[in-house]
Amino acid sequence: MSDLKLTTRAEDFSEWYNQVVLRAELADYAPVRGCMIVRPYGWALWENITAALDKRFKATGHVNAAFPLLIPRNFIEKEKSHVAGFSPELAVVTHGGGEELEEPLVIRPTSETIIGHSYAKWIQSYRDLPLLINQWNSVVRWELRTRLFLRTLEFFWQEGHTAHATAAEAEAEARQMVDVYSDFAWNEAAVPVIPGRKSDAEKFAGAEITYSLEAMMGDGKALQFCTSHNLGQNFAKAFEIRYLDQNGILQHCWTTSWGLSTRVVGALIMVHGDDQGLVLPPHLAPYQLVIVPIFKTDEEKAAVVQNAQRLLRELGDNGIRVKMDDREGMSPGFKFNDWEMRGVPLRLELGPKDVAKASVVLARRDRPGKEGKTFVPQQGIATAAANLLEEIQKALYNRALAFRTANTIEPADYGEFKKAVETGFAFSWWCGGSGCEEKIKEETKATMRCIPLDQSLGVKPLAQGGAGKCVCCRQAATERAIFARAY
Amino acid sequence: MSDLKLTTRAEDFSEWYNQVVLRAELADYAPVRGCMIVRPYGWALWENITAALDKRFKATGHVNAAFPLLIPRNFIEKEKSHVAGFSPELAVVTHGGGEELEEPLVIRPTSETIIGHSYAKWIQSYRDLPLLINQWNSVVRWELRTRLFLRTLEFFWQEGHTAHATAAEAEAEARQMVDVYSDFAWNEAAVPVIPGRKSDAEKFAGAEITYSLEAMMGDGKALQFCTSHNLGQNFAKAFEIRYLDQNGILQHCWTTSWGLSTRVVGALIMVHGDDQGLVLPPHLAPYQLVIVPIFKTDEEKAAVVQNAQRLLRELGDNGIRVKMDDREGMSPGFKFNDWEMRGVPLRLELGPKDVAKASVVLARRDRPGKEGKTFVPQQGIATAAANLLEEIQKALYNRALAFRTANTIEPADYGEFKKAVETGFAFSWWCGGSGCEEKIKEETKATMRCIPLDQSLGVKPLAQGGAGKCVCCRQAATERAIFARAY
Repeated sequence: MSDLKLTTRAEDFSEWYNQVVLRAELADYAPVRGCMIVRPYGWALWENITAALDKRFKATGHVNAAFPLLIPRNFIEKEKSHVAGFSPELAVVTHGGGEELEEPLVIRPTSETIIGHSYAKWIQSYRDLPLLINQWNSVVRWELRTRLFLRTLEFFWQEGHTAHATAAEAEAEARQMVDVYSDFAWNEAAVPVIPGRKSDAEKFAGAEITYSLEAMMGDGKALQFCTSHNLGQNFAKAFEIRYLDQNGILQHCWTTSWGLSTRVVGALIMVHGDDQGLVLPPHLAPYQLVIVPIFKTDEEKAAVVQNAQRLLRELGDNGIRVKMDDREGMSPGFKFNDWEMRGVPLRLELGPKDVAKASVVLARRDRPGKEGKTFVPQQGIATAAANLLEEIQKALYNRALAFRTANTIEPADYGEFKKAVETGFAFSWWCGGSGCEEKIKEETKATMRCIPLDQSLGVKPLAQGGAGKCVCCRQAATERAIFARAY
Repeated sequence: MSDLKLTTRAEDFSEWYNQVVLRAELADYAPVRGCMIVRPYGWALWENITAALDKRFKATGHVNAAFPLLIPRNFIEKEKSHVAGFSPELAVVTHGGGEELEEPLVIRPTSETIIGHSYAKWIQSYRDLPLLINQWNSVVRWELRTRLFLRTLEFFWQEGHTAHATAAEAEAEARQMVDVYSDFAWNEAAVPVIPGRKSDAEKFAGAEITYSLEAMMGDGKALQFCTSHNLGQNFAKAFEIRYLDQNGILQHCWTTSWGLSTRVVGALIMVHGDDQGLVLPPHLAPYQLVIVPIFKTDEEKAAVVQNAQRLLRELGDNGIRVKMDDREGMSPGFKFNDWEMRGVPLRLELGPKDVAKASVVLARRDRPGKEGKTFVPQQGIATAAANLLEEIQKALYNRALAFRTANTIEPADYGEFKKAVETGFAFSWWCGGSGCEEKIKEETKATMRCIPLDQSLGVKPLAQGGAGKCVCCRQAATERAIFARAY
């Protein structure tokens, strides 16, 4: 399969994406329209993502739990923006055990409602707060246009749900999770996300404030990496989540929710991938290093394989996720292509000459061809490989940041703005009005992605101080926003 | 909540069970009938179970993946025993995105069918075999009578699905997983399970052979701990899972499936629990040790808390899952009861006198009262605690095994048999006939749990060699079976 030439990104980015997902065996289409099978290689990647996040959630005091898949349909209707947002997307169970149900159930599209119902039961007093629960699961939203990982009827994610005694604590929690996700994106996924605030039009159905992390894909389009919502007292009032405060007065709680899904796998593909296929950041790659033994004769094979086995053990013992490709009947060249397609950060080539010289060739996935190859002595191989993996991790981040910076324009006027969103992000003064937001969307297909929390985008000081003119209506504006076409 | 006296096991075992689940905050009832919310403490326990199993699955060459929740209804109908077994239990999705679906979908009750469909696509040649995939997920079966953890509409589990080139390999896989599960049950869950073979009447809908592990609960009833199925070519034929063998001939694969669910949490409760509540095996307990600081004055508090903090760090740094109970406004006695209810294996009590003497009190959960308390010097506390935890782990296993042995009778005749199954297991010669099996079930409510693979039950040699007379019909019998009332 890997022998067929991949469509290049320049030819057709969308087709390139689909081919990479299927050929790297990350996922496959399910028999039900719009559903996805995450194959073992894709799931191993997701497991590394979940481990990196779960560690951070637990370090910030959160615990995991599991709430049911099935929700009474009337639950969804209790919060009025929520029902408007989710009703059109519901999967409805009408029959169970061979009989029609008295009240239809829905498969959770998200769990604010059923968790709100439980919190109302569990929370009595200020002593029970904050309540900080996360769950790893899948949810179903009846999407019409689907793409593997990016938008599927069922998708895998985590959803955090917290309840607090004060508005300030809920806001601090929502912002803390933005920091937690950013740390993950920057340091594990090597994706230079932009944390920011959503417009009213783009925020979560039921939220007071939605924060998101926006990332630029390899075609200049934006992808929402994850979200964190300050839900105010909306769900607390809809579900009567109340507590007795220290003065014995009954108060409504303040709640948050935040989530990150298998979309992030799509982001990794589209941020780091190249025309040879997937390029995975070492911190998340299922295999960080693959060993390809090279030999012709049986005698060569014996020596090479023995040496390779030793290296396999040594690398594994030193905490490197290593794989030996000892498949029979496949040429080294085929294996090189195969692991390039699958995005393994480092390839270790070992032939008879290398055995004789007690060295190996290490080939970097992020720099295909001769440029990325180095001869490395076998002595100290684990340290050399670990260092190189860290170097690759940083290089991927820097490359993605340079690409984003090069394709982010601060347009002087609406004409420049329109051009900017054809190839990347427009970082523009915006009056904050939904009129301008709608006009821009209609005329350019670009949506308001976020108002960056750091208005310097982390790379440079404000060009024009703290105020400017809205790129659309030319009225006074105090904040700049990222506009882009989006996945 | 823990202040209320628990119903004792002798009074009402079933009520005791429900109270322990709720009061230890393992789980709660969901708003949808028969569904379960697994609360953080219960989920932490399940996470430890999954980690212990996942490690074993990966060590035996399995990889994880994720198949969809939604299955076309006609898939279930492709294997004729499968449809008979599962049709009455299906949850059916008839509407999605506001419209009626052309073909109804079912929420997976188990994934043989959808995985079979994928395997047919992925497997081409003998080189693709064996295919060894597991998934962690939840499934839905429309049960009428439900109990938290033991039988719920939605439950959490893992389901392994493998495909092989030969019948022998499939059988070896099914048996290997029996060994893997047994190792987990004996060494992590401290449950002396009996691995065995199911009768035709009790086997999985679609299997050739079903193996199970049977455990005795604290009331003498049996609980099926998990199952491993040799599916023969049934699903391979229904879904056309075929491969080209080394001679270029198209062959049907041989498949297996095996699963273990959140029922096991119910088993842990009912095997180890006592009249004070939950008793958790140290290898799986969310917290292995809880520190309860004891003080009256502020001065005492300062000294005790400082010392407790140091112990907390030292125990944690040495890999012990430790929790400090620093809740304000609760007496030490209340905390003792609370953690006893939650089954924490070791309690560390630290008061001003202990600080002065540089010692602590360690109290074993498995031996309530004075008998289980020892004074231990603070120097070397981590080693002392680790050793004691291992001792508790073994003691729980031995106690459960002694209980099972005491309540397993080898009945001389049907009269003794009937008595035996009122309080425990009858280990009886059985002709293998379904007639006797049915008669026994009708007359005694006991079902054929399994034909133990080790006919000595691991504890003693065969009483009467390799043959005897069926306990029901008195015909010649070559195997002995466990009969019991079951959960």
